[in-house]
Amino acid sequence: MLIVQKFGGSSVADADLMRNVAKRIIKTYDDGKNDVVVVLSAQGDTTDELIAKAEEISPNPSKREMDMLLSTGEQQSVALLAMTILEMGYPAVSLNAHQAGMITTSTYGNSRMRRIDCERLKLELGRKNIVLVTGFQGMNRYDDITTLGRGGSDTTAVSLATVLNADLCEIYTDVDGIYTSDPRIVKDAIKLDEITYDEMLELASLGARVLHNRSVELAKKHRVKMVVRSSIVEDEGTIVKEACNMEKMLISGVAGDDDVARVSIIGVKDTPGKAFDIFSTFAKNQINVDIILQSIGRHGTKDISFTVSEAQFPQVKEIISENLERWDAKDVDYNHDVAKVSVVGAGMVANTGIASRMFEAMYDANINISMISTSEIKISVLIDKGDMKKAMRAIHDKFYLQDL
Amino acid sequence: MLIVQKFGGSSVADADLMRNVAKRIIKTYDDGKNDVVVVLSAQGDTTDELIAKAEEISPNPSKREMDMLLSTGEQQSVALLAMTILEMGYPAVSLNAHQAGMITTSTYGNSRMRRIDCERLKLELGRKNIVLVTGFQGMNRYDDITTLGRGGSDTTAVSLATVLNADLCEIYTDVDGIYTSDPRIVKDAIKLDEITYDEMLELASLGARVLHNRSVELAKKHRVKMVVRSSIVEDEGTIVKEACNMEKMLISGVAGDDDVARVSIIGVKDTPGKAFDIFSTFAKNQINVDIILQSIGRHGTKDISFTVSEAQFPQVKEIISENLERWDAKDVDYNHDVAKVSVVGAGMVANTGIASRMFEAMYDANINISMISTSEIKISVLIDKGDMKKAMRAIHDKFYLQDL
Repeated sequence: MLIVQKFGGSSVADADLMRNVAKRIIKTYDDGKNDVVVVLSAQGDTTDELIAKAEEISPNPSKREMDMLLSTGEQQSVALLAMTILEMGYPAVSLNAHQAGMITTSTYGNSRMRRIDCERLKLELGRKNIVLVTGFQGMNRYDDITTLGRGGSDTTAVSLATVLNADLCEIYTDVDGIYTSDPRIVKDAIKLDEITYDEMLELASLGARVLHNRSVELAKKHRVKMVVRSSIVEDEGTIVKEACNMEKMLISGVAGDDDVARVSIIGVKDTPGKAFDIFSTFAKNQINVDIILQSIGRHGTKDISFTVSEAQFPQVKEIISENLERWDAKDVDYNHDVAKVSVVGAGMVANTGIASRMFEAMYDANINISMISTSEIKISVLIDKGDMKKAMRAIHDKFYLQDL
Repeated sequence: MLIVQKFGGSSVADADLMRNVAKRIIKTYDDGKNDVVVVLSAQGDTTDELIAKAEEISPNPSKREMDMLLSTGEQQSVALLAMTILEMGYPAVSLNAHQAGMITTSTYGNSRMRRIDCERLKLELGRKNIVLVTGFQGMNRYDDITTLGRGGSDTTAVSLATVLNADLCEIYTDVDGIYTSDPRIVKDAIKLDEITYDEMLELASLGARVLHNRSVELAKKHRVKMVVRSSIVEDEGTIVKEACNMEKMLISGVAGDDDVARVSIIGVKDTPGKAFDIFSTFAKNQINVDIILQSIGRHGTKDISFTVSEAQFPQVKEIISENLERWDAKDVDYNHDVAKVSVVGAGMVANTGIASRMFEAMYDANINISMISTSEIKISVLIDKGDMKKAMRAIHDKFYLQDL
């Protein structure tokens, strides 16, 4: 078997943790003589420390140079882990993005994988080496270093699993799997044995930050079997795959996300093409707009509300102030004091009662809903930030405790 | 003009120092619109910290992985300095060894520059960018990262100056030039305006650690005009070139080196080929043997003594114990308690009185000489370690104070 394993930065933060990780990798390598490719993030706080150094120099450092800087963190990780495995008497070799042939789009700071030229990878696997690859980074067509943005190492792992036709892509994290809700908030949260790509995608985008969305999208597209498991505890973890057992629970998760801001553009002229104009402007600026709500037009104008992440909010504000006049809008209104709570489940498609059950839970808990958004496998509501945890517990109880 | 500048790690140790260095670079870039290529070492203690991390993992870490690890230090430096220059409103771009096309031999940890594929460098210079290149490293033919060993960034700078046909290669350090002796030991040491490559080579190999030997050899071979100057003080520094003013001083420097151990192989059979056998074994193991002294053979055996650096001493000991029997030698004797003091001067060739003057200074200071070695432009003596500073002062006084 060919297995791709990814370990996050906290799993390799010091020499002792490195030795732990090395032992797990060696176990996989020994078990049935697997080929093993390992993707690593930067050690512990390395990335944050490098960002702090850059910010000392410039409030808005060059993105190209930032990628040049940050990519060193992963290179240090793979070199140190290779030393650790070699010290234990097993063959290992580290490769950076250039050596591993990881070709990305040209955007710095948030680039996408385009292809992997994997001759070197195959050469090293052929030599029976455990191959350690820097996560989170690539080379663009200018031969410059790029990074894949937040959670990029997951994407690196799935990309490698795809091009190498891996049998399994294991994502090791500090949690032992995917839960029905955040266990820190909902005490009765249950670990799932399996979850579909689609459910995982919805959960990830809703604030359950175990896997990065892009990695799950990629896994789905190429049917890569993923497992999320603990780097500390020996445990089965949660399998992410195309379709799950039909006898499964009605919903697979309740997620809360308070990294969200609500924006309303008020008094937009009610003519065709306005919404397109507004949202294409955001899209061009790579703003991810989430829940969108448009009031029914009256008096010739309408209000358009939507949510964005707090991180993108300053840029959104700037874009709005530059375009408000052109959009012919009267005013704009912001609210940071909001949170989004969602239920996700592939079973939802065939089950019309879920939305009403969710709203019932909110009503019982006396929580006001200000926006609602639904997809085939997800229902999200926007509520006051202060109500988020209460809402998550109420919904989780409604679906799980009453079902059990 | 095209100017290559090299700054050491202490010159870029923090954001403030980076800004200082950036200003100097910008001044060169602005003055007469020069093209500027800058070579950097890793910031401050970065390299030592990375070595410590590796040593926590293994007492003898893989050399390939060590280079993979250490090379990140310079990459961080160039990225941060590029940000600094950009923040000041000047165009800059950082390049690592791969991007700058620095091709080396395949040896890890101590590799040699083979060639520089400088299309990218020329492209960036054509764009009027200040180009910042990682010192100390390269890529070998396996596409792996190598490092050039101690002082490697000087070699990177001279190599770049060579292939780019630079008009000048400026080495910025924490001293403001080359002195007639170490100013910390010899208070009356005089800063030299200029020095020949050969003198610099002898001084460097004798413990005056301002420039790395390999870089001077390279500069000599390709007639690269070098300047050693302070990164802190604005000053002329010392020019290193082919030939100097004939009216110059008799000797250009007095150097002391206590990083030296004396080894004696005793009772070697007095047959032809013995010395060749012994020293070729050391050469194969890349041991730099310095002063060699062979006793006149009697009773069919001879003693062979030589000096090596303390760093290579453990390896030397190993090689001797492996080969002593084969060499047919009776015994071996070591002494760490020694130092080497040397005078260097291109004027020496035509001046037979220098050796006797040096020995006179030693005699006056009551210092015993245990080994002597001479070249066309250098005389070295091996003495007790405790006498080194006294000897340097005595010799310096003899040549400079009595000449002035």
